Amino acid sequence: MSNRFGRRFVVSTWGESHGPGIGVVIDGCPAGVRWDEDYIAARLARRRPGQSRLTTRRDETDRPQLQSGVFEGYTTGTPIALWIPNADARPQDYEHLRDIYRPSHADYTYEAKYGRRDHAGGGRSSARETAARVAAGAVAELFLQQIGSGIRCRAWVEAVEDLRLTCSWEQIDFEAIDANEVRCPDPALAQRMATRILEARKAGDTLGGVVAGVITGLPAGLGEPVFDKLHARLGYALLGINAAKGFEYGSGFAGTRLRGSVHNDPYYADEAGRIRTRTNHSGGVQGGISTGEALDFRVAFKPVATLLRPQESVNRQGESVIVEGRGRHDPCVLPRAVPIVEAMAALVLADFVLLRLGNRLADWANR
Amino acid sequence: MSNRFGRRFVVSTWGESHGPGIGVVIDGCPAGVRWDEDYIAARLARRRPGQSRLTTRRDETDRPQLQSGVFEGYTTGTPIALWIPNADARPQDYEHLRDIYRPSHADYTYEAKYGRRDHAGGGRSSARETAARVAAGAVAELFLQQIGSGIRCRAWVEAVEDLRLTCSWEQIDFEAIDANEVRCPDPALAQRMATRILEARKAGDTLGGVVAGVITGLPAGLGEPVFDKLHARLGYALLGINAAKGFEYGSGFAGTRLRGSVHNDPYYADEAGRIRTRTNHSGGVQGGISTGEALDFRVAFKPVATLLRPQESVNRQGESVIVEGRGRHDPCVLPRAVPIVEAMAALVLADFVLLRLGNRLADWANR
Amino acid sequence: MSNRFGRRFVVSTWGESHGPGIGVVIDGCPAGVRWDEDYIAARLARRRPGQSRLTTRRDETDRPQLQSGVFEGYTTGTPIALWIPNADARPQDYEHLRDIYRPSHADYTYEAKYGRRDHAGGGRSSARETAARVAAGAVAELFLQQIGSGIRCRAWVEAVEDLRLTCSWEQIDFEAIDANEVRCPDPALAQRMATRILEARKAGDTLGGVVAGVITGLPAGLGEPVFDKLHARLGYALLGINAAKGFEYGSGFAGTRLRGSVHNDPYYADEAGRIRTRTNHSGGVQGGISTGEALDFRVAFKPVATLLRPQESVNRQGESVIVEGRGRHDPCVLPRAVPIVEAMAALVLADFVLLRLGNRLADWANR
Amino acid sequence: MSNRFGRRFVVSTWGESHGPGIGVVIDGCPAGVRWDEDYIAARLARRRPGQSRLTTRRDETDRPQLQSGVFEGYTTGTPIALWIPNADARPQDYEHLRDIYRPSHADYTYEAKYGRRDHAGGGRSSARETAARVAAGAVAELFLQQIGSGIRCRAWVEAVEDLRLTCSWEQIDFEAIDANEVRCPDPALAQRMATRILEARKAGDTLGGVVAGVITGLPAGLGEPVFDKLHARLGYALLGINAAKGFEYGSGFAGTRLRGSVHNDPYYADEAGRIRTRTNHSGGVQGGISTGEALDFRVAFKPVATLLRPQESVNRQGESVIVEGRGRHDPCVLPRAVPIVEAMAALVLADFVLLRLGNRLADWANR
Repeated sequence: MSNRFGRRFVVSTWGESHGPGIGVVIDGCPAGVRWDEDYIAARLARRRPGQSRLTTRRDETDRPQLQSGVFEGYTTGTPIALWIPNADARPQDYEHLRDIYRPSHADYTYEAKYGRRDHAGGGRSSARETAARVAAGAVAELFLQQIGSGIRCRAWVEAVEDLRLTCSWEQIDFEAIDANEVRCPDPALAQRMATRILEARKAGDTLGGVVAGVITGLPAGLGEPVFDKLHARLGYALLGINAAKGFEYGSGFAGTRLRGSVHNDPYYADEAGRIRTRTNHSGGVQGGISTGEALDFRVAFKPVATLLRPQESVNRQGESVIVEGRGRHDPCVLPRAVPIVEAMAALVLADFVLLRLGNRLADWANR
Repeated sequence: MSNRFGRRFVVSTWGESHGPGIGVVIDGCPAGVRWDEDYIAARLARRRPGQSRLTTRRDETDRPQLQSGVFEGYTTGTPIALWIPNADARPQDYEHLRDIYRPSHADYTYEAKYGRRDHAGGGRSSARETAARVAAGAVAELFLQQIGSGIRCRAWVEAVEDLRLTCSWEQIDFEAIDANEVRCPDPALAQRMATRILEARKAGDTLGGVVAGVITGLPAGLGEPVFDKLHARLGYALLGINAAKGFEYGSGFAGTRLRGSVHNDPYYADEAGRIRTRTNHSGGVQGGISTGEALDFRVAFKPVATLLRPQESVNRQGESVIVEGRGRHDPCVLPRAVPIVEAMAALVLADFVLLRLGNRLADWANR
Repeated sequence: MSNRFGRRFVVSTWGESHGPGIGVVIDGCPAGVRWDEDYIAARLARRRPGQSRLTTRRDETDRPQLQSGVFEGYTTGTPIALWIPNADARPQDYEHLRDIYRPSHADYTYEAKYGRRDHAGGGRSSARETAARVAAGAVAELFLQQIGSGIRCRAWVEAVEDLRLTCSWEQIDFEAIDANEVRCPDPALAQRMATRILEARKAGDTLGGVVAGVITGLPAGLGEPVFDKLHARLGYALLGINAAKGFEYGSGFAGTRLRGSVHNDPYYADEAGRIRTRTNHSGGVQGGISTGEALDFRVAFKPVATLLRPQESVNRQGESVIVEGRGRHDPCVLPRAVPIVEAMAALVLADFVLLRLGNRLADWANR
Repeated sequence: MSNRFGRRFVVSTWGESHGPGIGVVIDGCPAGVRWDEDYIAARLARRRPGQSRLTTRRDETDRPQLQSGVFEGYTTGTPIALWIPNADARPQDYEHLRDIYRPSHADYTYEAKYGRRDHAGGGRSSARETAARVAAGAVAELFLQQIGSGIRCRAWVEAVEDLRLTCSWEQIDFEAIDANEVRCPDPALAQRMATRILEARKAGDTLGGVVAGVITGLPAGLGEPVFDKLHARLGYALLGINAAKGFEYGSGFAGTRLRGSVHNDPYYADEAGRIRTRTNHSGGVQGGISTGEALDFRVAFKPVATLLRPQESVNRQGESVIVEGRGRHDPCVLPRAVPIVEAMAALVLADFVLLRLGNRLADWANR
């Protein structure tokens, strides 16, 4: 069950980092979505390894093969399967790790759970699995766009180590995000972040940081009470991304220092008669259900666990060993985490929209 | 679906704040758990309104009635239903709010979603629903205890507004948590927190804060890869608690400022040959699966939305109104949030244990 | 999980035959359904024990208590819980069965599964649990009626032992079903069935039979392909009723003897341009999805396992024992099975309708 | 959701009859199952088109490609994906059916549901999808075998049209089933059935029939009470096979004519002290849970809907048309239904076993 996400827009993924490839099947995407292969490829290109000097040099084109669910250019309502072959897998590079548990990787825990593991690049625990999520998220985005929902999630790098963007999301030029290799919308800060990442790599070290995001275009009334609150499902989705360590939305942890008289968001009716809030400490969610304001959030990512320097560890027999630092790896996961965050958010939103709509596209217009 | 939580230890809750009561049914609790009504009552007493001068004066005994699933002192494997009558409901107190949306409550969003709402005390959106969670969590705790798992979650108030406990969980005296009405294990700090809460109440205002917790006794190998990572399910569960704004575990947001060479947790084998980590920035989870170290986490809670002072808002017609400040409410949710956090953690853990065990108690001994 | 049914209109039941009562919570019923307590009570009255000389003499009024989910006469979208107290429980009557496995009951199998059991009247395995289903089914019917779906399921007793009604469903006067205590729409046959049942009771024996039913008012396009075919979910639901031994729909087992050239249902367009089939061997379902024609089906029920005569069996120690024949029991379950069949069908249909509609009532009008 | 089956051993399928291929991913298969490609291929060969003169002449080798979940010869606990390319797809053969609804196929209903459809060979509604089920079922069988469960399902053709095998399952030589092309264990009857099928084909007509099966090796205590009874899940699974019209188990419909005094299965303890029943009208299930006796069942299959003769129908515009009879099709689905029935049964059983066991292979030995 753990390889499946969603209640109505359901994705199941499979595949290992150095096996034949990565796959995903989407069950529940309504019929009538116009297929846009280029859009999906473009979304995947943002996650692709080897896209810049800041990322791993593994070379994957990540062009997915469509196996089902689309007929004459439109989705049919039946499962959509996408298969992304691994073109540059090198399982033999990991032979020296067969019996060794790399620190802060999933090697030991997978073995504790399953009694065996695929040691090549972490097998299933590798972030290569997220290619499937980005592909599925792109389909969710096509759905959200084509029904005219206006719902859109945008994410960006807010912090790398202690370098931090401090403006609010309203001040961000979304067009600037992809204008640099870091995906931080402040070009000067992005430059400093890039320099920092390259320095860390040179030192054989790695960095963590924060991805921020905002979901706009939400109607009021999306989400479910009690356990499946909109933000709880979003947090669940984002905490499931490799290396995620925390999630907050709206005022978040900082908001715990405000008094209720400051934190509460007063209602007013705008000129069009639409009910709005003057502030948005709520992050667009009250009681787990959307208010119609923007849902802003932040996700913490730890520094990458693979270091290009020797580390102490143990092998399967519990003997002390030195893990050598070699291979192809990202010194900082943040730039490539941005499209993954957006994809998971799109999956969450498509799911909630379908819970509300059933599976008929035409309904959205009448909402 | 939104009123159900869990995959194997499944709880469903119902009931409104000012209706006849709150109920919960647990489907999936194995047979053979010794029923302990006093234990459950004691857990509920920690969440009970009216327990101290810091909480709402609503007077509920919260003694649950057992409706099914237990026979001659032991669970039978069939659903366990508990019903907690509302003894001190006063729906008439909310008549003036019938057409008004209280700021930062779920009034407007429920109406946007459902087209109607129970305006008495927020109906289903009230935190009174969490009584059901604490009752179910107590049953999960009985299960975890009686199989000898050693798994236990303890939580405490780490911060109220800017008053913050800064020690690590290893330094905490768990016995001290319940020794004061705030549930902060540092008595001096707890005293200052209590004073702050009473001051805020006097000013008609409210406070937020942070609940921290730690899960100990975890075996290695608990959790599921990809979407249902142990921490992702835990975050999902805790973000679903009323007023929660953020979740982090292990090194959390602060860990994003560490380099990989510092953040990585080196493995070693202890004297008994058990594989351990020297540090635990991982928070006891790697690749979504437990390492066997402690899982420490923090949850942010916003200040309570109900103020004892007038606030601007709108009514159903979009007209400006003043929401009067009156009624029985907590000035700070933190002391009562502690048992709710523990309960949700217990539900998550019982669920993962059953995924691993199937539903036979005897198996645990052979793990 | 086994005590829950449905994907969108989700019911969870609890309670034992001789415990405090039987409960059900419905999660997923849309807001805005007008509550009709009398309707629900009337549906329950058809299943009620003691309703005629053909049924058990246990005396239950089965008037459910509403615990949540309805506000000022309408459902709110939050869980609807109903509690049906057991007024005439007599657990002490079963003391002699504490260590004995009654033939063809669930005594032995529950104990094999759970290691313990509630021996009073079968505990959870008793058909008393179906009171909860009928209550929930009545709510599903209110939903299906009030959205103007036109979908309706009617069932009747087709056979008792070898006494069999041979006409097709189109020839049945639905008003005649409840006009007699057997619920067979042919009064003369019903009379013979009643006589047969009373004879069997007098002989300390029991009878089985067949309940037939038809779902009318189905739109084309309801159901899901592959595993969740409309008839597969219906069969699943009906096979889960106590004592059910078989299910068939449309031409059923008899249809296996027809050739394709006879069995195929030719399409035509009726005067209104609606696409219809000239015959309906398909039972209103093709490829798992409704055609818009009626869905007719049959369910086999075995003879009641409790006999008023001594039977050979074993006790917990494997020793031969004689099970005495005494207590209050139905000699034939068929008349009371009719409302249970209808209720389960309503639950299946409400679920499929919501999968299609999402949870907004207004949508149905635009379908 | 409709393309997914199972709760713990979860299969999701995708693919269309004349698209690139058919796929399946299994989520929940425990680690440590020894991979046996030949076994899986052998199971698929029994379902393969073109296997005898009685089946369609479409030529598919149906050799699945393993995409994930197996490492160095053993399952790893992560998803197992299998991809079966369509080697002999001919979508152009269906161009004349683009606007036509074939009688008793899913053409019209898919279009009513989704607003569009893949008209090539029925697209997703084709029984070609069952190749994925047989592949997954083979993996379930490997699991059930390797844990030493002893659980096994065997099926055979009991009836073709009115030609019927009348012996009980105990009298059947299971080795004889695959000894002929019909898969009826009585060679003389199989010969008559084959002749009948060839006659029907020559007449451009098709036949239906009954597949019977028996599950042996069941421990007592498998299954879940109330909605997920063992036979209800089995019926659900088998009714979801293309062309299925009915399901019965144990005494089935015929058992409704027996009196309780005859139908009840008396318990006794055998020489080994194991509790058994003298008769088995229960079909190995009481109260939804296995008794340890064999579970025998029957599934009705309608005659194939594709005829090699002209038929009346309508097109998308509601105009009368003649559907031409041509293409490659089975005159009788029964011989190829046998492995599909066995596969679905294996999926149901692996699922129940895992519900009971959790996901650790070693546990089974301690049951």
